[in-house]
Amino acid sequence: MSPATNALHANFDVDYVITYRFHDTPKAEAATDFQNLMQALARVGLAIEVRNGENCSLLVFVKVVSDERLNNAIYRSRVKDWLHGVRAAQPDRETQNSLTSQPLTEAERYCTVHHMITSPREEGGAGITVKYGRWKNVESIFPLHDHAFNNEWMKKWATMTFIKVEDLDDIRNRFGEKIAYYFAFTQSYFAFLLFPAAFGFSSWVLLGHFSGVYAVVNGLWAVTFVEYWKRQEVDLGVRWGVKGVGAIQEKRREFQHEKEVKDPVTGETVQVFPATKRLGRQLLQLPFAILASLALGTIIATCFGIEIFLSEVYNGPFKSYLVFLPTILLTGLVPTITTILTGIATRLNNYENWETTEAYDSAMTQKIFILNFITSYLPIFLTAFVYLPFGSLIVPYLDIFQLTARPFAENEKQLTTPQAGFVVNPSRLRKQVIYFTVTAQIVNFVMETALPYVQRRVFRKYKEIKTERAAKKGATPNAAANDVPEEAEFLARVRNEAELPVYDVSTDLREMVVQFGYLSLFSVVWPLTPISFLVNDWFELRSDAFKICLEMQRPTPYRADSIGPWLDSLGFLTWMGSIISAALVYMFSNDGLGPDGTPADIKGWALLLTIFFSEHIYLAVRLGVRLAISKIDSPGMQKERAERFMVRKRYFEESFGEDAMELPPPMDREKITRVTLEEEARQSSLKSTGPSDGFWLRQRSWEESAKIGAGLIEKMTPTETKKQQ
Amino acid sequence: MSPATNALHANFDVDYVITYRFHDTPKAEAATDFQNLMQALARVGLAIEVRNGENCSLLVFVKVVSDERLNNAIYRSRVKDWLHGVRAAQPDRETQNSLTSQPLTEAERYCTVHHMITSPREEGGAGITVKYGRWKNVESIFPLHDHAFNNEWMKKWATMTFIKVEDLDDIRNRFGEKIAYYFAFTQSYFAFLLFPAAFGFSSWVLLGHFSGVYAVVNGLWAVTFVEYWKRQEVDLGVRWGVKGVGAIQEKRREFQHEKEVKDPVTGETVQVFPATKRLGRQLLQLPFAILASLALGTIIATCFGIEIFLSEVYNGPFKSYLVFLPTILLTGLVPTITTILTGIATRLNNYENWETTEAYDSAMTQKIFILNFITSYLPIFLTAFVYLPFGSLIVPYLDIFQLTARPFAENEKQLTTPQAGFVVNPSRLRKQVIYFTVTAQIVNFVMETALPYVQRRVFRKYKEIKTERAAKKGATPNAAANDVPEEAEFLARVRNEAELPVYDVSTDLREMVVQFGYLSLFSVVWPLTPISFLVNDWFELRSDAFKICLEMQRPTPYRADSIGPWLDSLGFLTWMGSIISAALVYMFSNDGLGPDGTPADIKGWALLLTIFFSEHIYLAVRLGVRLAISKIDSPGMQKERAERFMVRKRYFEESFGEDAMELPPPMDREKITRVTLEEEARQSSLKSTGPSDGFWLRQRSWEESAKIGAGLIEKMTPTETKKQQ
Repeated sequence: MSPATNALHANFDVDYVITYRFHDTPKAEAATDFQNLMQALARVGLAIEVRNGENCSLLVFVKVVSDERLNNAIYRSRVKDWLHGVRAAQPDRETQNSLTSQPLTEAERYCTVHHMITSPREEGGAGITVKYGRWKNVESIFPLHDHAFNNEWMKKWATMTFIKVEDLDDIRNRFGEKIAYYFAFTQSYFAFLLFPAAFGFSSWVLLGHFSGVYAVVNGLWAVTFVEYWKRQEVDLGVRWGVKGVGAIQEKRREFQHEKEVKDPVTGETVQVFPATKRLGRQLLQLPFAILASLALGTIIATCFGIEIFLSEVYNGPFKSYLVFLPTILLTGLVPTITTILTGIATRLNNYENWETTEAYDSAMTQKIFILNFITSYLPIFLTAFVYLPFGSLIVPYLDIFQLTARPFAENEKQLTTPQAGFVVNPSRLRKQVIYFTVTAQIVNFVMETALPYVQRRVFRKYKEIKTERAAKKGATPNAAANDVPEEAEFLARVRNEAELPVYDVSTDLREMVVQFGYLSLFSVVWPLTPISFLVNDWFELRSDAFKICLEMQRPTPYRADSIGPWLDSLGFLTWMGSIISAALVYMFSNDGLGPDGTPADIKGWALLLTIFFSEHIYLAVRLGVRLAISKIDSPGMQKERAERFMVRKRYFEESFGEDAMELPPPMDREKITRVTLEEEARQSSLKSTGPSDGFWLRQRSWEESAKIGAGLIEKMTPTETKKQQ
Repeated sequence: MSPATNALHANFDVDYVITYRFHDTPKAEAATDFQNLMQALARVGLAIEVRNGENCSLLVFVKVVSDERLNNAIYRSRVKDWLHGVRAAQPDRETQNSLTSQPLTEAERYCTVHHMITSPREEGGAGITVKYGRWKNVESIFPLHDHAFNNEWMKKWATMTFIKVEDLDDIRNRFGEKIAYYFAFTQSYFAFLLFPAAFGFSSWVLLGHFSGVYAVVNGLWAVTFVEYWKRQEVDLGVRWGVKGVGAIQEKRREFQHEKEVKDPVTGETVQVFPATKRLGRQLLQLPFAILASLALGTIIATCFGIEIFLSEVYNGPFKSYLVFLPTILLTGLVPTITTILTGIATRLNNYENWETTEAYDSAMTQKIFILNFITSYLPIFLTAFVYLPFGSLIVPYLDIFQLTARPFAENEKQLTTPQAGFVVNPSRLRKQVIYFTVTAQIVNFVMETALPYVQRRVFRKYKEIKTERAAKKGATPNAAANDVPEEAEFLARVRNEAELPVYDVSTDLREMVVQFGYLSLFSVVWPLTPISFLVNDWFELRSDAFKICLEMQRPTPYRADSIGPWLDSLGFLTWMGSIISAALVYMFSNDGLGPDGTPADIKGWALLLTIFFSEHIYLAVRLGVRLAISKIDSPGMQKERAERFMVRKRYFEESFGEDAMELPPPMDREKITRVTLEEEARQSSLKSTGPSDGFWLRQRSWEESAKIGAGLIEKMTPTETKKQQ
């Protein structure tokens, strides 16, 4: 257990810190509640220390009381894995042997202890839930950062171009498979991006925009990447010993059962919520999707209309400032509406009452994906499929947006669309794609990494000042006031970490998936897109590491054998890509963005035929790529085969010994018949049950059968004619 | 083992009959070869009797020498199943117990004995192969019919409307899972047909042909049926204990390895044929598919052209007879070409050098499916998408077929297309669909059932006469001449069975799949199609039972957990159906077959849009149906859950005993600290390794932690203002 020791030592052997916040609970009640918490924790074998935290909170430090206790818990979880098919071999019954042959990683240790704290009492845990039900005062449960490792990690990554699988192993050993899968995915994606980046650049130089060749290659690349990643996922699952953990589902504590029924087969009492009722509730997603589309669509379309009005129609003063108005409106409104819609989505998801955490997350991911799909891709859709083809028809109606510029206009003419000769701005589509794939990525990067860092600095400074002032006034005492000197530094660090937000890996994954979507759907508009993403992702990978180390609480390691429902989103985006890219190439490549800009002659049937072929070629290629990838051997598959083979071999040997598999001596039947003829006659008279005995006794050995056969062959061969005997 | 005994008794306890034919082998060689056969059989523990067969053949009767031998083989195969995940629980090590708890079916017995005869020597079998390699003289290996059961079965089925799952169990117990799956599939299909039959009839009465409503309902039905069957397959797999046997693949004896490599992980020597090389060979399928399409397409298109020429253009004498010419040509040519193409397909498939029987069969099925697709559906495609829309353009060029009628024509005018006013015959499409879904089905039924029966009768009579005549002339003696009286009747029966063909279930399955294709693709043309199929399948099910009992050798039971690659064909046909039906409805429903017959105004974009929507709605519905079906509990899933639950429970109990799962007594830490304070002090001085010990010793029990916590809560609560202490 050497890897664990280092981290634990630097943190006084603390496994987890639980923050208990009591600011809105009456004192007496809080004290009883806290006593219950202590009891629950001690009951499952955890040692406890309490220190005071900031702002009416207590910090509860826990560690496992004894190695034996921990080992038992680990053994139990490994047996469970084995029974669910996650491990090929049954863990050794001697716990100590089991741990020696399969060493414990830091992640497994943290995962097991977390399970002790949070799993329900029926399963032998303390049943502590964060901010829910009985434990609503428990604000967070988090492990402590291993700063030595963190520093080393950040230093290593900052200087490294490619992340190797051993580096992913490190992440897995520290932060668990769920986070490691995110890094593995982003790294695979980054490595795969090299090809379209190079090809995109050549294509940009040689073929220009809207190249059919680029679209085909890009589509092929997307299919290959998604299918490759599926295989890679399985491979990593085998490498990390988690293949199949997706099947071990944890019951959601928030699940409300409708009735309890006795399972007809297992005899266990099962809490049931009827699937049909859930299906009914799921149907609410339909109005939700419509609502979301309408809300976001209206805002985006309106801002889009205003933008076009101001940039293409309006001709008065302040034009250069006014054109920023829609961007400002969008930047302000979209996040607000998205937050509201996410809130509705969460409530919908809660209302759907999923039984397991996995199902809940998966349903939530779906909803979030829809929202993201609309906010990320709708503006470009509008430009490509509404503004550019129908621009000259629509623009005259944009007069309704006159009011945005009326205060500044000097006369009506500046506000009116010229009756004839209006031409759509053909470069708008490309500019928009560049905005989303370069500018927005950079802005996003800054917002995600630098901003919280600055915010936190400022906030900490502010707090310090406030605390000082409060101390002068004689308010609640400073949390650190009573610290023992040898603990002071450590406690200060823990108090800081307690204030940090919890890292949610799915946000980062979502970002990558949305980015992949731009590539798959729109990169044919501007083939340099992959280069932008390549650069972005190099920094993204490092900044995420940085973020986890410095900006977030150390994440609790969770196990996973996949990036989860996002995989479906990737597949969906690739599929959509085959449709959208084909449409874009057909619509804009023939005439290109010619001098008059309008793609003059779009034929409906030709467009649809292009889409039809592109989509079906995509489906066929996907089938082919899947087949090809399934044929290729990989380290993970080899390892799995080896493990299975060893298990089978052992069982076969155990079951039969060596000799049972050997062939019996030949002619054993003959021996019996020669030696014990009389015996046999006696036997046959004893057990004779019908004519079959006579039948089987006519030839006494295989040699006799062979002789008789030879005789018959001699007799029956047609080349010679014989008399009937 | 009671079910086995009955059948075996009537057949002198014979397990298998092996026919050995030596007519083209020199006598001496045949005798040695035969001796080797006897030795190989005896070596694996089989008792042997030899009798003479007809036409230079020997009948080798084998049975397992002892029950112990058989039981060991069965136990071995069950352990193998368990290791591959087919059985949830490890078989009892006591073979006898194992057999008592899981009784042996006749099929399992026959399957095991067959495995003893045919599996390679490395796996402990005799390694006999039918008509291949060393054993090219071994003509067939077959079990004997159980006539009592057969008669009872036929009688029962003839009077029964619905086949119940218990009847399927009977088939499975007798003929193995592979055949049982065919009957289960056909029965499910039959039961499912009731709905479209009723709906089709109403639709025919109320909505007429090419009803969009019928198309949608039919498509929904097809999706539901295919998805339901997938679930049903799994369910039956659990019921019959074969779920997952598809993963246990048997190596093909014909497989030619390119090199032998040591597996890097298992250390076994593995025979390898590079997948890339096979992929290269598979590419030959492309020219093959083109060749097949061209060959069959040309014939079909030509006959189609001739038919149209004769029926619509030609106007001379003998017209009513001449119109049969293309049908005669088709009936003669298509089977010939198909046979040639099937031959090429088989050779291609052999050349692809598949490693396992399953992969070989799957690849072959694919090729056969392509051939069947062309011969079955191309004529209707031609009518619907070439003749009807473009008829008036094409017909003038049909003059090239004049020569077919020239000898009979009285003048040129009878052979020439009228220059103007030619109208396509709008009812041709419906007539053709009716032909394929009614007439062809009946013809097929007769060809398949009645014809071989008559043929066999005639052939037997002929043989009798010939033998009599030969006997008079003094030729080779009659096979039955030397039979012992008490065996005579039995041997006559065996000789008859030896002459029967081998039953190939995939032919029957193919027929059902092709039929399903008509329903999915074209039934919108004539909504009475499902009624025709319903009637047909009722007879089909019975005639197949009849065929297996009377017309074929008793099939060797094979295990399976699916109808195999045909499932993909079903899915493909449903998908195609969503496209074709939509196109048919769009093309023919608006104008219908109006008075002028030509669908006047087909717009390309509208047709493609219809197809686009129909296909994507199909895909969405399929997703939904899959989801819904996955939510529904079924007996099979319950059984599987129960089995898994029992296994887990047992292991958990074994691993921990009851008490290990209990919670430890609370406050154990406190007890220690109170009682052994000095001891602890000593300990801590001994193992003190850093500041962490001091940290963890400040609060001695959870109660102390709780008290300190309460104190801090008291102190920190913000509602009261306190002085700093």
